[in-house]
Amino acid sequence: MEQPARGAPMPSLQHSRRSPLASSEALALASLGEAWLNLTWAERLAAFRTLSRWDAEELFLGLPADDQIEVLLAQPEEEQRAWMRLLAPDDAADLVQEAPDEQEKQRLLALLDDPGRREVNALLAYAEDDAGGLMNPRYARLRPEMRVDEAIRYLRKQAREHLETIYYVYVLDEQQHLLGVVSFRELFAAPSKQLVREVMRTQVVSVQENQNQESVARVFTQHGLTAIPVLDVENRIKGIVTIDDIVDVVQQEATEDIQKFGGMEALDAPYLKIPFGDMVKKRGGWLAALFLGEMLTATAMAYFEDEIARAVVLALFVPLIISSGGNSGSQASTLVIRAMALGELGMRDLGRVLRRELGAGIAMGLGLGAIGWLRIVVWHQLRPTYGEHYLLVAFTVFGSLVGVVMFGTLAGSLLPLALRRIGFDPASASAPFVATLVDVTGLVIYFSVASALLRGTLL
Amino acid sequence: MEQPARGAPMPSLQHSRRSPLASSEALALASLGEAWLNLTWAERLAAFRTLSRWDAEELFLGLPADDQIEVLLAQPEEEQRAWMRLLAPDDAADLVQEAPDEQEKQRLLALLDDPGRREVNALLAYAEDDAGGLMNPRYARLRPEMRVDEAIRYLRKQAREHLETIYYVYVLDEQQHLLGVVSFRELFAAPSKQLVREVMRTQVVSVQENQNQESVARVFTQHGLTAIPVLDVENRIKGIVTIDDIVDVVQQEATEDIQKFGGMEALDAPYLKIPFGDMVKKRGGWLAALFLGEMLTATAMAYFEDEIARAVVLALFVPLIISSGGNSGSQASTLVIRAMALGELGMRDLGRVLRRELGAGIAMGLGLGAIGWLRIVVWHQLRPTYGEHYLLVAFTVFGSLVGVVMFGTLAGSLLPLALRRIGFDPASASAPFVATLVDVTGLVIYFSVASALLRGTLL
Repeated sequence: MEQPARGAPMPSLQHSRRSPLASSEALALASLGEAWLNLTWAERLAAFRTLSRWDAEELFLGLPADDQIEVLLAQPEEEQRAWMRLLAPDDAADLVQEAPDEQEKQRLLALLDDPGRREVNALLAYAEDDAGGLMNPRYARLRPEMRVDEAIRYLRKQAREHLETIYYVYVLDEQQHLLGVVSFRELFAAPSKQLVREVMRTQVVSVQENQNQESVARVFTQHGLTAIPVLDVENRIKGIVTIDDIVDVVQQEATEDIQKFGGMEALDAPYLKIPFGDMVKKRGGWLAALFLGEMLTATAMAYFEDEIARAVVLALFVPLIISSGGNSGSQASTLVIRAMALGELGMRDLGRVLRRELGAGIAMGLGLGAIGWLRIVVWHQLRPTYGEHYLLVAFTVFGSLVGVVMFGTLAGSLLPLALRRIGFDPASASAPFVATLVDVTGLVIYFSVASALLRGTLL
Repeated sequence: MEQPARGAPMPSLQHSRRSPLASSEALALASLGEAWLNLTWAERLAAFRTLSRWDAEELFLGLPADDQIEVLLAQPEEEQRAWMRLLAPDDAADLVQEAPDEQEKQRLLALLDDPGRREVNALLAYAEDDAGGLMNPRYARLRPEMRVDEAIRYLRKQAREHLETIYYVYVLDEQQHLLGVVSFRELFAAPSKQLVREVMRTQVVSVQENQNQESVARVFTQHGLTAIPVLDVENRIKGIVTIDDIVDVVQQEATEDIQKFGGMEALDAPYLKIPFGDMVKKRGGWLAALFLGEMLTATAMAYFEDEIARAVVLALFVPLIISSGGNSGSQASTLVIRAMALGELGMRDLGRVLRRELGAGIAMGLGLGAIGWLRIVVWHQLRPTYGEHYLLVAFTVFGSLVGVVMFGTLAGSLLPLALRRIGFDPASASAPFVATLVDVTGLVIYFSVASALLRGTLL
């Protein structure tokens, strides 16, 4: 978080009183930064070329990896090396991963100097969404036997390299085992003659190199930390993850969950960037799965075909009733899945969820049922539509709504928990399950209530 | 991010070789930190009391404000002052806002020392989700005429106060106008005799005190910054926002959006914590709104009652067809709303969205239509269910699915854009609109296709 890349403040309009040049540059860069998302690539690159070298670098370093590579590849080939070497190893690895093909990937790697390429290659070996894929291998390090004044001098030298941060300094033994951590500030405040060993904290929160990024993000938010060391199985430090990368992780995980809630596969790319064919495949696949599930509604309806033929009035309320079940189910599953993703809810809470949802389902079902009952009775008074047994029809709708809403909330809240229990991702599996289950069950509930109440009159 | 509160590393299992005491403490604290979410409040408080003072403070400082206040209020009244004064002003303000009533709020404020209370009161004046509500008023500051060596000495003194960070230092004139920023690291690397004015950067990204937190979060991610100063309308600095608070903002905004997608009001509280009545009100309100909208389906169905009476077979496919429209609509609106929230998409992209969704809708509609057609034809071959005109029924379903899915994707993607255009929040307004619109329109499409294809045979 504190190399020129991420830590460098970007300009804005105010406070550029020193020189008119600085002021107009600040204006150009600030307005380009803000306008960036609204421009086409041709406009972006044209504007990029008008910036001073410094400003262009500032802008480049602040861009996400998928924009960085577009800018980089638009530069003349002989200038690409300088741009590539601006990047910290973790950012360089992200950029290389955006390369269109293997050949281009190798060409970009070849632009780095030898130690840089080794670092980037080491990072590329990690899965992108593991702690190892997020970390930066350049962190500030000290030996435990150093004196505080020596340590500060030594850090001053390290500060000239492109370290991710000098504000947390990790104390290592000769085999790179993590012994402790000291903040630069603590070091700064300590007496010069003390040993690092005496100043450092030995209780260090760390993550494992293959820990997934969602769980790394949770460690950050739980402990309120700004940097966490990444260790291998033998407790040797491999790098550090800083909180600025975690913001991106949190955004990205939320986007994936939201897309799964929306009943599709996570796109893993911005809407306007994903190729049309890929998008249709990811959406169409789920849509077809949902459709196959929903076919059961046709089967269920066929089962009640005689009832519908005898009392067509029953068909009128089918969409209303199943959509109420679907809506209450999607509310409940959304709530529970999000609470699970945030770690607020787990299997241990099954009993409490069950009680809450049963209560909420009954309360909301009675409410909707009352509205539905009123709708039919009042409507029929104004303009007789539902035949002589309209009151029985109204009670059928009332009873069905109570049952359907209650079933919807229960199914919507319990299915995600059940799916996690048997090892599925609750977010991606729930939407089709809940929709199908609630629609089919809703029909069965509706026609069963109808059979019970209308037998001998309409049926 | 670098006061004892947020910056202090929390313990974990490894590296506590110095003393057996430290090791067992580390174990206790680490396991309590991890188990926290799984414990009841009685268990949490019991475990909390077993921790050493230092560990208890570490845990307390890492907790979210709503947990902090529970822990605080569980302490004997004479000890609460010490706990309260541990907190940085922004965290203290968050905690005070969680107080159950005004009287308790005043009591907690009275526990602070005078300058602390003034700071917290100033923060409480801001709306919770404005930049002002996120910021910490304690930041490191310098005068432009200082020499670098003087500045470092001066910062060493400031470092002992509870500053949010000493790693970015803000250079102010006498009226608190922001002149520039210098990272501690740059200061550290600069020649001792230079003036701060010569080292600082004058181009500073800043936010306004009443800017909303979502837009502040976007400034952070766009520019890759770790701290941003907050200015008033006259460009005087009021405080700084640091990236660790932004992680919480991003999580919270995603939760709100997800709950709105799920068709309810954002709960603004964890699922298990929100009072039952409040939850039912927030969910039931939307459910009733959706229900009122869906009543139009009953009206639409009544309009086609004669057709249904003549060809009951048509009723069988009603749930299948409207659910397909609903699913394709919810996919499209989820995608578009999330892309808008991330700033990837705006009104300017209307044309591209329209083309993409029209294409996707036709492609997916043809796919689902084909599956539906096959289902009817194959099913009928196996067990004649749909009468002599089953082939016409199959084509009716095929044609309706193409129309309904296409309409669903278009309505789902364009409505959020239209809603933003007329000033509504796309996330909260879209679900009911899309659902109702697509269901009612789906019925009209279905029965219109049926009328066209079946006139003279079934109808």
